[in-house]
Amino acid sequence: MLKRYLLAPGPTPVPSEVLLSMALPIIHHRSADFLPVLDSAKKGLQWLFQTKNDVLILCSTGTGGMVGSVNNFFNKGEKVLVVNGGKFGERWTKICQTYGLDVEELVVEWGYTVKPEIIEEKLKKNPNIKGVFIQACETSTGVYHDIETIGNIVKNYADTIFIVDAISALVAHDIRTDEWNIDILVGGSQKGFMLPPGLAFVSVSEKAWKKNENSKMERFYFNFKKERENLAKNQTNFTSPVTLIIGLNEAIKLLQKEGLENVFRRHRRLAHATREAVKSIGLNLYSKESPSNSVTAVEAPIGIDGQLIYKTLREKYGVTAAGGQDRAKGKIFRLAHLGYSDIFDIIVGISAVEMVLKSLGYPVELGKGVAKVQELMM
Amino acid sequence: MLKRYLLAPGPTPVPSEVLLSMALPIIHHRSADFLPVLDSAKKGLQWLFQTKNDVLILCSTGTGGMVGSVNNFFNKGEKVLVVNGGKFGERWTKICQTYGLDVEELVVEWGYTVKPEIIEEKLKKNPNIKGVFIQACETSTGVYHDIETIGNIVKNYADTIFIVDAISALVAHDIRTDEWNIDILVGGSQKGFMLPPGLAFVSVSEKAWKKNENSKMERFYFNFKKERENLAKNQTNFTSPVTLIIGLNEAIKLLQKEGLENVFRRHRRLAHATREAVKSIGLNLYSKESPSNSVTAVEAPIGIDGQLIYKTLREKYGVTAAGGQDRAKGKIFRLAHLGYSDIFDIIVGISAVEMVLKSLGYPVELGKGVAKVQELMM
Repeated sequence: MLKRYLLAPGPTPVPSEVLLSMALPIIHHRSADFLPVLDSAKKGLQWLFQTKNDVLILCSTGTGGMVGSVNNFFNKGEKVLVVNGGKFGERWTKICQTYGLDVEELVVEWGYTVKPEIIEEKLKKNPNIKGVFIQACETSTGVYHDIETIGNIVKNYADTIFIVDAISALVAHDIRTDEWNIDILVGGSQKGFMLPPGLAFVSVSEKAWKKNENSKMERFYFNFKKERENLAKNQTNFTSPVTLIIGLNEAIKLLQKEGLENVFRRHRRLAHATREAVKSIGLNLYSKESPSNSVTAVEAPIGIDGQLIYKTLREKYGVTAAGGQDRAKGKIFRLAHLGYSDIFDIIVGISAVEMVLKSLGYPVELGKGVAKVQELMM
Repeated sequence: MLKRYLLAPGPTPVPSEVLLSMALPIIHHRSADFLPVLDSAKKGLQWLFQTKNDVLILCSTGTGGMVGSVNNFFNKGEKVLVVNGGKFGERWTKICQTYGLDVEELVVEWGYTVKPEIIEEKLKKNPNIKGVFIQACETSTGVYHDIETIGNIVKNYADTIFIVDAISALVAHDIRTDEWNIDILVGGSQKGFMLPPGLAFVSVSEKAWKKNENSKMERFYFNFKKERENLAKNQTNFTSPVTLIIGLNEAIKLLQKEGLENVFRRHRRLAHATREAVKSIGLNLYSKESPSNSVTAVEAPIGIDGQLIYKTLREKYGVTAAGGQDRAKGKIFRLAHLGYSDIFDIIVGISAVEMVLKSLGYPVELGKGVAKVQELMM
């Protein structure tokens, strides 16, 4: 018998209350049944995004939200700045290039954050940069970028919008869309939202909507203007994924019951305990700066393959964490503390890591990392 | 947010596969749909009970199975021997007395097992003892009685049957109904079976069925002869709890996939690790002899109320263990490792106990008990 424990940075575990709500009979998305459901979901998202902007609900993965954030606001050949500090930064570049944008990449060493002043310099030098793309949490490296400071820089450029992929950061981090002048914020259901994959959420500022008016790129599926018009009528442009939106309302209910401050605090504490636990058993964090509250990236000890740690966790202990991606593959493993996560998820993860490392020949004192979690969380 | 962890000796956690099977549409118990369901359940129970006897399926808690084991096989005024070494031994006495049996109690100090030779002496001295009642695992003290040896004693008395309440022992212990000459073995769904409460299972030997013929006690709901006749037709006497029986089949499927030997081995290892973990942090077992594989009863440290440990586990950490019953109330707490339980359930339980004890002023080194579990289970 192998029980399964999901400690990956998405998909994340879904609470029973949410799963059960999604087992209710399917309702029709153009019926009166659905209007209050979407109304409630859109208000809940505004609360979670800390915004008065529309938060569009798309039937896609987070990447769909990213694609729409490109092809609804720009025109072919326009210059944009992409912060690329990992696998998902790279994805911004690829999407922008696919749509013919002139991408200037600000390459950041994996494991490090971007210095906001470099962005400011770039914007000063290139007044024709029309958008700044970044991740809030770069999932591949476990690093959280300083969105607040960057938002306060970009806001001073009247024709430049600030686009943040917060897919793995939302809910785990206190991200203030309006206060920080984030024009486009992208989320995905299978992360902090405690939902299955299938929904992307995108908030769009008035500054961005103005750019939308002049954007002539081809778009059919991710047509944000049409989504906005539908949202005003508590509808979506195409068939609404009714089940997931019902689940979204249930998940928001749970988060509202806990309170936004407590949700952020819980993630902060779990992330801190995870980091201190892995350090206490002699491991190094892969995130050299500003580790995120969503996922902790840990360097595999010298001589031990990070993918083997991931594989052994999963096959021997039923614990699905994450390995490394791309250039970090084999060098790291990652433990998430995102969404429906509590102290015992961390204890399960750390105790499993201890056993796996020991079985792979790393000299770990069993229970030491767990003790650190207990000490910090009790 | 408080996630819930169920580590009580019943009800126990139910696997998703089983829960989902019970969410299927209700079928009718007198329809052709149901016949193969019950057929499969009865065969599965025989496999689990290690018996060729009928295993009756009753719509009741385990106690219903105990009541039926009394009022189907005896007559008013008959002498029976009851081993009373805890709260559930006491229950046998109460049921037997309710039905007017002449109960001779063999009182065993709480936390100890009965000596089989004493039962042998009693039977020799009192050839008119018609039944010997016992628990396999006495849930209130965490002690497992030597059912095999006692079965081999009672079998020599032609008019005496051996009745075992194995409600909390089945699945966790290798109990060989036929090989050990157990005439009546009682189980309950909400324990090792990984099911919700609501079903009792009772296996009845031919020796017991002979006594049933001469038993004139009043019975209507728990009429074993009628249940047996119905079972032969893949039916139950009254409305079958179809949902729970569908779940039973699913649970048996999971157990069969794991294999009976592996199921017993898993429980043995989890129980051993739990005991060694609590001992490693300086606590004493309440079971002074033969601790069971189902539940570990632990003495609260001097000066700390066992009920407060139970309460703090539950309220602060969401961990539902068990306190003490009756004379053990306040003196002990109990951690189950029964049914759908794995290494991380034990780690959650032990880490929570460590934190609770520390917060209540007991000098525990955090992580020490967890390390013992890891060491023994990896």
